Amino acid sequence: MKALSSDADQAADPVVVKLSGRLLSPPRAAYLRALRDSLLRASALRPIAVVAGGGPLSREYISALRELGVPEALLDVMGINAARLNALCLSLALYPRAPPRALATLEEAAEALARGFIPVMGGLQPGQSTNAVALSLAEAVGAKLVINALAGVEGVYDGPPGSEGSRLLERVSYEEMEALVAKNPQVAGAYELMDHVALSIARRSSIRVLFVNGEEPALIERAIRGERVVGTLLG
Amino acid sequence: MKALSSDADQAADPVVVKLSGRLLSPPRAAYLRALRDSLLRASALRPIAVVAGGGPLSREYISALRELGVPEALLDVMGINAARLNALCLSLALYPRAPPRALATLEEAAEALARGFIPVMGGLQPGQSTNAVALSLAEAVGAKLVINALAGVEGVYDGPPGSEGSRLLERVSYEEMEALVAKNPQVAGAYELMDHVALSIARRSSIRVLFVNGEEPALIERAIRGERVVGTLLG
Amino acid sequence: MKALSSDADQAADPVVVKLSGRLLSPPRAAYLRALRDSLLRASALRPIAVVAGGGPLSREYISALRELGVPEALLDVMGINAARLNALCLSLALYPRAPPRALATLEEAAEALARGFIPVMGGLQPGQSTNAVALSLAEAVGAKLVINALAGVEGVYDGPPGSEGSRLLERVSYEEMEALVAKNPQVAGAYELMDHVALSIARRSSIRVLFVNGEEPALIERAIRGERVVGTLLG
Amino acid sequence: MKALSSDADQAADPVVVKLSGRLLSPPRAAYLRALRDSLLRASALRPIAVVAGGGPLSREYISALRELGVPEALLDVMGINAARLNALCLSLALYPRAPPRALATLEEAAEALARGFIPVMGGLQPGQSTNAVALSLAEAVGAKLVINALAGVEGVYDGPPGSEGSRLLERVSYEEMEALVAKNPQVAGAYELMDHVALSIARRSSIRVLFVNGEEPALIERAIRGERVVGTLLG
Amino acid sequence: MKALSSDADQAADPVVVKLSGRLLSPPRAAYLRALRDSLLRASALRPIAVVAGGGPLSREYISALRELGVPEALLDVMGINAARLNALCLSLALYPRAPPRALATLEEAAEALARGFIPVMGGLQPGQSTNAVALSLAEAVGAKLVINALAGVEGVYDGPPGSEGSRLLERVSYEEMEALVAKNPQVAGAYELMDHVALSIARRSSIRVLFVNGEEPALIERAIRGERVVGTLLG
Amino acid sequence: MKALSSDADQAADPVVVKLSGRLLSPPRAAYLRALRDSLLRASALRPIAVVAGGGPLSREYISALRELGVPEALLDVMGINAARLNALCLSLALYPRAPPRALATLEEAAEALARGFIPVMGGLQPGQSTNAVALSLAEAVGAKLVINALAGVEGVYDGPPGSEGSRLLERVSYEEMEALVAKNPQVAGAYELMDHVALSIARRSSIRVLFVNGEEPALIERAIRGERVVGTLLG
Repeated sequence: MKALSSDADQAADPVVVKLSGRLLSPPRAAYLRALRDSLLRASALRPIAVVAGGGPLSREYISALRELGVPEALLDVMGINAARLNALCLSLALYPRAPPRALATLEEAAEALARGFIPVMGGLQPGQSTNAVALSLAEAVGAKLVINALAGVEGVYDGPPGSEGSRLLERVSYEEMEALVAKNPQVAGAYELMDHVALSIARRSSIRVLFVNGEEPALIERAIRGERVVGTLLG
Repeated sequence: MKALSSDADQAADPVVVKLSGRLLSPPRAAYLRALRDSLLRASALRPIAVVAGGGPLSREYISALRELGVPEALLDVMGINAARLNALCLSLALYPRAPPRALATLEEAAEALARGFIPVMGGLQPGQSTNAVALSLAEAVGAKLVINALAGVEGVYDGPPGSEGSRLLERVSYEEMEALVAKNPQVAGAYELMDHVALSIARRSSIRVLFVNGEEPALIERAIRGERVVGTLLG
Repeated sequence: MKALSSDADQAADPVVVKLSGRLLSPPRAAYLRALRDSLLRASALRPIAVVAGGGPLSREYISALRELGVPEALLDVMGINAARLNALCLSLALYPRAPPRALATLEEAAEALARGFIPVMGGLQPGQSTNAVALSLAEAVGAKLVINALAGVEGVYDGPPGSEGSRLLERVSYEEMEALVAKNPQVAGAYELMDHVALSIARRSSIRVLFVNGEEPALIERAIRGERVVGTLLG
Repeated sequence: MKALSSDADQAADPVVVKLSGRLLSPPRAAYLRALRDSLLRASALRPIAVVAGGGPLSREYISALRELGVPEALLDVMGINAARLNALCLSLALYPRAPPRALATLEEAAEALARGFIPVMGGLQPGQSTNAVALSLAEAVGAKLVINALAGVEGVYDGPPGSEGSRLLERVSYEEMEALVAKNPQVAGAYELMDHVALSIARRSSIRVLFVNGEEPALIERAIRGERVVGTLLG
Repeated sequence: MKALSSDADQAADPVVVKLSGRLLSPPRAAYLRALRDSLLRASALRPIAVVAGGGPLSREYISALRELGVPEALLDVMGINAARLNALCLSLALYPRAPPRALATLEEAAEALARGFIPVMGGLQPGQSTNAVALSLAEAVGAKLVINALAGVEGVYDGPPGSEGSRLLERVSYEEMEALVAKNPQVAGAYELMDHVALSIARRSSIRVLFVNGEEPALIERAIRGERVVGTLLG
Repeated sequence: MKALSSDADQAADPVVVKLSGRLLSPPRAAYLRALRDSLLRASALRPIAVVAGGGPLSREYISALRELGVPEALLDVMGINAARLNALCLSLALYPRAPPRALATLEEAAEALARGFIPVMGGLQPGQSTNAVALSLAEAVGAKLVINALAGVEGVYDGPPGSEGSRLLERVSYEEMEALVAKNPQVAGAYELMDHVALSIARRSSIRVLFVNGEEPALIERAIRGERVVGTLLG
């Protein structure tokens, strides 16, 4: 985990925090409070941008509309807006450090970050996961690290998380992740590690992704500070 | 209920349908399908605009943020956007008869209606219920009738709905409604009949409001057609 | 007036200044210059947001359109935009301390304030007075004080202002104000003290409202600084 | 005036009506009603787009701000928005045949016209009169005729209107108008015939401009129909 | 090619036309005229939406900025806007049948199509090719066919186009295309057939893609009409 | 050239840099890098706003559409957007010191400047050159100097640049420039010095324009610093 500590040296680099939608929906006051406090403290050290997933909220609206035969691209529109509702919720908790709305384009998120805000985004466009949004945003603002806060697991495992013999991986290369995602799609499905687009952006711009257990905001805070934390480092 | 049938005579008048958020959140495919089909059939007869409430979705996000001390006006922003998510869901089900997005101002909803669409709105502004939105929209587009689709009750009662001796009212005047709302706030709270702003708009522009059980879209459809249905007519 | 001086202690709190439309329309250069200078000086002490009323400009356009049978909700759209013209005028006078446009949502006004600007708003939405806008904005940005600058009167009186025996009230509670507005609607009409929505926001969030004579910008400036001034304190 | 009657033959061509701001501000209900009725009747024959001037409303806000030293380009912003208030007023009177807002770009006005609406614009950009807006819009939508409705005069005169010996000109060429405007700037100032930009657009695209007395909406209506009316034809 | 003729039977289905950026940039008047005329004629038969690529224009701006070290996600922003310039050019040629602007979201393109326009889009979001935009749009509006107009080749070949022994394929399955793209990336690069995202949308929604030589607008027109044309049918 | 050095004294005044479109289109990496570095260094001294012309990019799209009979006002829309593409390119090079988009109104450019950004604009509105945009922007933000960076010439000459006997003018008055532009329109056409609207804004607000050879960004930088450079000073 040596690479990570070098992050501490360049503490002024921006960092992007991707939050699993399951951390935010349904909303829990205690969690939101701890998350807000951690992000506010950490934002004194380096610029932070946040991307919220849609989670169960997204899935229940999409699932209902799919039964009606609504086309997939419009289901994506639904999911994007569900993720934006989670993003709005977090931005209201962070106001006045965040603009009190879900930012809807990379350009305005990059602009808000340049003004000293903590921009919060949800989904962007049909066909793109919020993981890909996080990597695109990191690329746009020059972040070399994305912290991917998962719900209920501590990082990437070499097997189904929780099953006997599954071991948390401390570090994986882009190639290993690609193989993991390709070979074990059910694993990917289980905790939404990464999709193909996100992975290819990470690789082309050498952006590292640190997977951590997002249920503990203190862990996210320490990761932002560049401390060594339990999790998996990709890249 | 004579007044209602006269609506049939002027079938080209637009009508506004207000849907309780509890009908839409969490979303149910079977209900959405029946609602969509009813609205599409009825829209052949007269122009229809729809306003969706935020319901439980709105309440759970607001409640979490309130615990964090987020100010009430920003909680309203949260609720407005939750109602817009419900509106988006319905607009996607209605597409291409509805623009595939939640309309965010009276002006654009009025414009979409004038173009032959079925506009769907959510919340508008802090301090305003979606009931008030429905009445404002009705006023703006010249609708003389708002159909207020309730969740689980058949209209306005002279006591707590479901309790012994409570009787469904067939017709109430604006004055009687004002008294009901003022005297029995808990009743109002129970099924969100009306708020003060909505009521005053209804009165100043002589807009009638028909409360019906929204769980049966066929009932909404018949009400749009101007048929006599079980419910309560205000005005 | 002890409560007010405690404001001086927490001088970094934002304050919202509501300006009667009659102060701004028709526009007077000398008044605008004095107002601009006072606001700029006072803004060195604490963040300021401004809400402009529509005044006579609003009334003359609305009155003409009402004769044509334009619906009330669209008349409100007219009034909102008239108030925004007054807001634009003031924002141009304040540029570059204010963004050179009338801000149209609470969210963007809150964002501009967080960036160090003096945001200026006009009306927001049908059914809402600019008094309600001022209270909503105060609530959104965490202001505990709204300065309500009246045209030609020095505050709230216990009778028609100017008539024999009418006495300026130094302090009124929310309950007393509610009674005043309810009992003497003609008084309320006379100098637009407050409407029901504005009052209920003030009460739920314990926001005090200081009514002063807006014809003297120096008075507004001193009130922003937390000094004791002639006027009426609500709350 | 033969050229004009040939317009009747190509009745489906769009026409742009430019209204002097003095016709609209301060607003007069009787005038607005007659204007609305004339425009609605005439719009059955050919597509109509409208451009409203700022008039006295524009001038009084600009004059006050100029005394404060606000730069000219921002004064233009003020004037543009004053003209838009007049445009909004007319669009509300025309709703639902007009979108209920002042259109702010040529592109959206052209789009609204293509949808069958009567778009109403105010000012566009600093440095451009509403006469130039009218000619630009005519050019964009392929209108070969602009009806320039003046306040209180019947067209273009060979001297100061109203003075002895001044004669209404039935027809002027682009060259003659240029000479008139250049030689008698005070005449141009007197009733805002044209500016250099507007004139050069008219010439490059062979758009004729018919100056009429806008105080009589029936005259505007007849001119739209291609009838011979009192006035001056440019081009 | 039997499947294609069945398209003729359901002529009211919308169709999406994807134009290679190389057909549009640099712009050629004769080509644009022929394309416009073909699209206008064909649009009488069925609703048409268009997506324009960025082509050489996109590549030259991106290439210059890449040398400056501008991050890839912002290079995508550059490419998106270059494609939108091509889209604007075509939309101006099609006006008033197209809104005179490049549409920037699926939602507004879908809305414009539902209003009877020919919407023209460019790029959408970082990380997404205009091929993926075309497939997303097709999915959103319920189009079962995308016509992919290539520059200089007649469809998909089983080897490098133009080289000895390379044969035009009449039909390829989704699986075969996936293999082609994966095995011969240089082929894909050569004439931008498809990317992974576009292909997966085509497959999940059973949208067929017909590759034709876009240099002949008459061919595009015949393909829209459902006629048998030289080219390659995917799906 | 005494007047210029006095600029150094008031170094905090904003300055507007107008870049000929020929400097930016087609884009050249080396030039963009040098320009970016010069602007970033100079922006430490005083606020800078930039306006980019459309250049050859604009002309080729306009020329193609003109052959199709697209009206002049829509050709202007094309040119405005071509200039915005150049503006976007430069803003991406300058990010995060510039918002990563072409600003589309004077108001937002003025607001961005007030926030400490380097706003970059392209065209504004039909009928207006980017020279006029630069002067309007200067007027709006209170800049007393516009640096007009030309492509391939060093300033204003008393004859066709490059021809025998043509001499670079060190200083010209507004009156002399007006005569130059009027008498030698072909000269003006040759290197787009100024148009009538731009000149009249410069004169009414006493804004000086310094024409320099934009091919050398170091020259632009020195001019921004208020140093004496080769070129022509207007005003």
